[in-house]
Amino acid sequence: MTLEEALSETAQLVALNVDQLLPSPEDAEAKLHEAMLYAMTGGKRLRPFLALQSGCLFGVDEANMVRVAVAVECIHAYSLIHDDLPAMDNDTLRRGQPTTHVQFDEATAILAGDALQALAFEILANPLTHSDPYIRCELTASLARAAGCRGMVGGQMIDLECENMSPNIGMVTRLHQMKTGALIAFACESGAIMGRASKESTHALRAYAHDLGLAFQVVDDVLDVEGDPEVMGKSAGKDEQSGKATFISILGLERSREQAQILAAQAKTHLDLFDEKADLLRQVSQFVLTRHK
Amino acid sequence: MTLEEALSETAQLVALNVDQLLPSPEDAEAKLHEAMLYAMTGGKRLRPFLALQSGCLFGVDEANMVRVAVAVECIHAYSLIHDDLPAMDNDTLRRGQPTTHVQFDEATAILAGDALQALAFEILANPLTHSDPYIRCELTASLARAAGCRGMVGGQMIDLECENMSPNIGMVTRLHQMKTGALIAFACESGAIMGRASKESTHALRAYAHDLGLAFQVVDDVLDVEGDPEVMGKSAGKDEQSGKATFISILGLERSREQAQILAAQAKTHLDLFDEKADLLRQVSQFVLTRHK
Repeated sequence: MTLEEALSETAQLVALNVDQLLPSPEDAEAKLHEAMLYAMTGGKRLRPFLALQSGCLFGVDEANMVRVAVAVECIHAYSLIHDDLPAMDNDTLRRGQPTTHVQFDEATAILAGDALQALAFEILANPLTHSDPYIRCELTASLARAAGCRGMVGGQMIDLECENMSPNIGMVTRLHQMKTGALIAFACESGAIMGRASKESTHALRAYAHDLGLAFQVVDDVLDVEGDPEVMGKSAGKDEQSGKATFISILGLERSREQAQILAAQAKTHLDLFDEKADLLRQVSQFVLTRHK
Repeated sequence: MTLEEALSETAQLVALNVDQLLPSPEDAEAKLHEAMLYAMTGGKRLRPFLALQSGCLFGVDEANMVRVAVAVECIHAYSLIHDDLPAMDNDTLRRGQPTTHVQFDEATAILAGDALQALAFEILANPLTHSDPYIRCELTASLARAAGCRGMVGGQMIDLECENMSPNIGMVTRLHQMKTGALIAFACESGAIMGRASKESTHALRAYAHDLGLAFQVVDDVLDVEGDPEVMGKSAGKDEQSGKATFISILGLERSREQAQILAAQAKTHLDLFDEKADLLRQVSQFVLTRHK
């Protein structure tokens, strides 16, 4: 299977399970459910893909693993809703569609994000995710750490605080490890948790995720400078306008591109202890470099 | 011990544990941690109190139970931060202090709420909360349901949707069972989960919480009409201004007061199967009626 086929298969599987795991619009709170579903539609599904591939490495049943994949996507989708709010990045376009607060309204967007976060943990704690409650607790604790004040949310806070400051490369790296890296790392590790993998395998996946996440972010910064808004489905050039701390602002465009290549190559080497089951994960590191959105 | 002494003891215990369980301000995300702590300071600590008392009924160790109490308070505090935002209820005063978005800024307030929600689940999933992972999963799943789109967040959505509609008593009751009742019910049941209580005891506590939660909300509506903003530490008269669906708007002031008394008396009867260990819970039903804030 090519990576493209695998990604598209993941997207279909995730969409199917999103329909089953999200509440259907009903009663007075229908608008909330619609907004949750709206925010969970589309996207590259990169994190669910990483979770499912990580599960494959350890023979985890796909029916269980996809629940973890959807939980990760719930956290990712909620973070996009909140990051796009007027009080935060004030974005009106996401995945080629109006952002959730534009499509609905700000209050509904805030609540849809809040509800998606709760849903992620509800899904993980459910026995259908794994029969062993110890594993479910490990997943819950890891995702909560990755999503919280020492992970994703903390990273977003630093991102806002760094605007119009002059951060160094260390600060920008830490920011992105928290803001996007922590959730990508959880996705990559989740199969190891589900499959009771060895410490060695878990550490390898964490190291892979670390480099992959940074490569992903460097390319994100590059795309913000030279990407096509039409293709990306979101605005470009926003980082410079808002004085954001990016790799470009520190390394420049050329060295940033090189750095992304170095990180992607490095990411791949961490998978050396896995057999051909890790081939799609190997390809993802290349995909991250060549993506246009 | 009088109820007043017990409530004040709970407040001290919770404050101590909040200091231990919340991150200390450091690094670039210090502002986030400060905002989280700010939102977790003060208040009646009613939900932690209910959790701790519920634990007492089943001999749960206080050191474990207080972690659940703090997790519930994290969810409550985050919901207040988000409900107070300009896009929601647009409140500037809470517990006699500026609301979190006024004290900090909107973006920080949104993120502090998000991080407190994640922290609640991180605390529950930690082995320090209970040695049995099955119990930890039960707590996580129950809290996630109570907090999510079929609980607290769903209730807040209905509350916003009902503004300037003419809801009937059934709709208002459902709204409040979701918006405030679900989290109060989790607090009351949490000791039963931690102490592996019988179904009978669990159901009794759920029924108690159901009536207590509604009595609490009716009194909240009454206080909004005739309470003293100085004493309450928040604005009054906001429900009528914003055309909110309240018990007063449907039953009138006098019948609402009667209804609160009926509910409080009813709440107490559900505790008949417990011995004197439930005395403070019995007193809370009275306290809810006579509170001024």
